[in-house]
Amino acid sequence: MKRAYPKQPIVGVGGVVIRGSCVLLVRRGTAPSRGEWSIPGGMLKLGENLTDGIRREVKEETGLRVRPMESIAVVDRIQKNGRRVKYHYVLIDYVCLPAAGRLRPASDVLDARWVERSELPRYKLRPETAAVIADAFEWVKKHERPPASRRRLATVPATDSKDPC
Amino acid sequence: MKRAYPKQPIVGVGGVVIRGSCVLLVRRGTAPSRGEWSIPGGMLKLGENLTDGIRREVKEETGLRVRPMESIAVVDRIQKNGRRVKYHYVLIDYVCLPAAGRLRPASDVLDARWVERSELPRYKLRPETAAVIADAFEWVKKHERPPASRRRLATVPATDSKDPC
Repeated sequence: MKRAYPKQPIVGVGGVVIRGSCVLLVRRGTAPSRGEWSIPGGMLKLGENLTDGIRREVKEETGLRVRPMESIAVVDRIQKNGRRVKYHYVLIDYVCLPAAGRLRPASDVLDARWVERSELPRYKLRPETAAVIADAFEWVKKHERPPASRRRLATVPATDSKDPC
Repeated sequence: MKRAYPKQPIVGVGGVVIRGSCVLLVRRGTAPSRGEWSIPGGMLKLGENLTDGIRREVKEETGLRVRPMESIAVVDRIQKNGRRVKYHYVLIDYVCLPAAGRLRPASDVLDARWVERSELPRYKLRPETAAVIADAFEWVKKHERPPASRRRLATVPATDSKDPC
């Protein structure tokens, strides 16, 4: 599927993965956002539902398994080159909780890390990305502590000593 | 763009148009839902943002101009034929308020009408459509009366004498 000059809008999915006061960020390795910090995510595949797409993308890019909880944002991203549409994404973001795995930057990304909320301004996020991260922190704060059966899944083992969060 | 056996997920947009205790329904004229009652909507076009797509689809199908207020649902609709993906829509629904125009069923629909909330069970809606309509009524109830500058736009002139709502 062509990303640039597509024939129809492309569905992108993103995971806003929250752990305590930290969020999972990746540094994009491909156009149109190469070098930018953002949340993990990518293109939804044919036949794949949204939550499966988010789980797959976050796993591929960061090594972590996550639980998508609820969609919290839908964003248009349209970029034109003159009159032609160069990029057209409809991005659907879910707030996610970490489930398992070890942080390991992987395909399509230059880096991946947990970032403490107060450090976010240094990452020069797009305004809409910063807004959706703020909403995700609110979502997590508002929702009750998960039942015991889910608590185990929602806890990431502290295996990465370089992780500041 | 092929609707059946597409090469990638297709973005669909829908408008849940609320007026008092009524919602705007259409009876679909095309596959995969021919004959079913649902909310107005259709495929997002390349280069078109979500709210423009909703305004266009509702106008085309019902003659009414609406104000999309906020996205309230994102739904996967995947239908397979054996192992092949026959339909794959990602449907994004916005709660809308009517702005202007006269109800007039048009392209791609067999009928369009305002339906009183208590009458909805007769329309045999899909469960996820009934749920998003319930959410839209809640959304409207929760939000304040719009400021005076918007009130004029949010009021539909009572020009359709057959309208039960």
